[in-house]
Amino acid sequence: MINKLIKRIEELEAPIVVGLDPMLSYVPKHLMDRAYQDKGENLEGATEAIWLYNKGIIDAIYDLVPAVKPQVAMYEQFGIEGMKVYMKTLEYAKMKGLIVIGDVKRGDIGSTSTAYATGHLGKVTIGDKDYRGFDEDFITVNPYLGSDGILPFVDVCKQENKGLFILVKTSNPSSGEFQDQLINGRPLYELVGEKVAQWGELCMGSQYSYIGAVVGATYPEIGKELRKIMPNTFILVPGYGAQGGKAEDLKHYFNKDGLGAIVNSSRGIIAAYKQAKYESYGEAAYADASRQAVLDMKEDLKNAWQHL
Amino acid sequence: MINKLIKRIEELEAPIVVGLDPMLSYVPKHLMDRAYQDKGENLEGATEAIWLYNKGIIDAIYDLVPAVKPQVAMYEQFGIEGMKVYMKTLEYAKMKGLIVIGDVKRGDIGSTSTAYATGHLGKVTIGDKDYRGFDEDFITVNPYLGSDGILPFVDVCKQENKGLFILVKTSNPSSGEFQDQLINGRPLYELVGEKVAQWGELCMGSQYSYIGAVVGATYPEIGKELRKIMPNTFILVPGYGAQGGKAEDLKHYFNKDGLGAIVNSSRGIIAAYKQAKYESYGEAAYADASRQAVLDMKEDLKNAWQHL
Repeated sequence: MINKLIKRIEELEAPIVVGLDPMLSYVPKHLMDRAYQDKGENLEGATEAIWLYNKGIIDAIYDLVPAVKPQVAMYEQFGIEGMKVYMKTLEYAKMKGLIVIGDVKRGDIGSTSTAYATGHLGKVTIGDKDYRGFDEDFITVNPYLGSDGILPFVDVCKQENKGLFILVKTSNPSSGEFQDQLINGRPLYELVGEKVAQWGELCMGSQYSYIGAVVGATYPEIGKELRKIMPNTFILVPGYGAQGGKAEDLKHYFNKDGLGAIVNSSRGIIAAYKQAKYESYGEAAYADASRQAVLDMKEDLKNAWQHL
Repeated sequence: MINKLIKRIEELEAPIVVGLDPMLSYVPKHLMDRAYQDKGENLEGATEAIWLYNKGIIDAIYDLVPAVKPQVAMYEQFGIEGMKVYMKTLEYAKMKGLIVIGDVKRGDIGSTSTAYATGHLGKVTIGDKDYRGFDEDFITVNPYLGSDGILPFVDVCKQENKGLFILVKTSNPSSGEFQDQLINGRPLYELVGEKVAQWGELCMGSQYSYIGAVVGATYPEIGKELRKIMPNTFILVPGYGAQGGKAEDLKHYFNKDGLGAIVNSSRGIIAAYKQAKYESYGEAAYADASRQAVLDMKEDLKNAWQHL
């Protein structure tokens, strides 16, 4: 799957993943009205509205980017009805040829990690048939519990040729509270980065490992350091755009081969029509605004990744 | 909710939570047969079997313990069908008067943490009605992302009078890889423990905070230290029994008031009938074996918590 991701990045010249993190407040009125009319002004209606919104965005951007990253929390907040729309979004995105990265940030130990890995990347066998739960291509994972927590995920990745992005340095302001603490003079995130590189060796694609890392765009100097510590690790970079990360800072996250990173934008793409820059589209054409925002992001990133 | 938990612990003289972490291999044949006959040998049948199994255990133990802790991964592995049974288990346990601790180990930042908190502890408003997603009383949360990740959960806890158990020191062998690393001579878990105590002050019940901690039974000396660092924090203690934690070690986790900790047992209770000690029950009476295992655990813990 990491090889497929790289191939698509190269074909499309777009190391970009679109974060499908919908909020009800992003959904244009015409879709809210249609959903409430069809399903009622209730949980089913609200989650239908989110589905229609996602579908519009996927239809507008599927030929421009290799991957989408739905944030499961945005669906989980609606309980079972929300999880159904998470699933429907994953299925539709895959059907359109997109790679799906489930931003689930799961993490536990032993048989519990195996169960998460099974539900999101693997399969259960019942009688003589296999069944797949959510069936993402990649998921994000939290490393706080150590190797016992990560290796069961790695085992399932090996069986399924799927991958992980493990949190190393997150993009938020308080990420340093624990992640930046110095251990023998070196920050915790470096220690985690080293472990990610080691775990990654257990599960290599042709150039890069199936086991990737999350490093926020908001800390470019740290990105530079971690790029060296994890030479064969693909980095998922959140924090571009809305969170303040700039394209010129992103060059540190790429290797000299022009690869090694994929940059996420969520709100900046999916709610583009709410920005002054794209407001001329109007909310009815929200998906066209998202398409234009992807094209603009591609252009913006070009300096960062093509001319290393 | 922390006050209610403490009241029930005192009434039942049982600082015990039963972990509902079902595996298909635990489900007795008569329940598997019934479920497959009713729903087919497929995902629906397998998750029905887990539901019947859970229901039997809840019916057998609800009058002995204050709380149950379903591990969501064990349900999530079956996708949407599994999540439905997670939900059904939560609802049934609450109906029987049990407090439910969702072992979900979620954690993200900002609006994403808010979304998780909404789905598990809070509500969404659609039109003029409120809807609740999974609606647990407490959930477990991962602290790796720092305050930005935790405070949105704390806000929802305040609104809803619900609570958290934040991972501080987990019970697994490799938990030390990151959690034990020394920062200015002190392990990371102490730093996390201090933060948990601070976050806890934002959301106090009468004696203890709504914001609790997870500290594994397998590291009693660490439990002793963390007990001092977090005097008003309730500690959820995994790792008793099957993972090797012993009752005599648990006294360190309690305060002099005989409170301050609740000890989890999962496999040791729910799959008791598979142990030599309880095999005379046979698999048909698996729930009776679970009831006896709870009574035995209560007795075993008495020395730890009643005579401090």
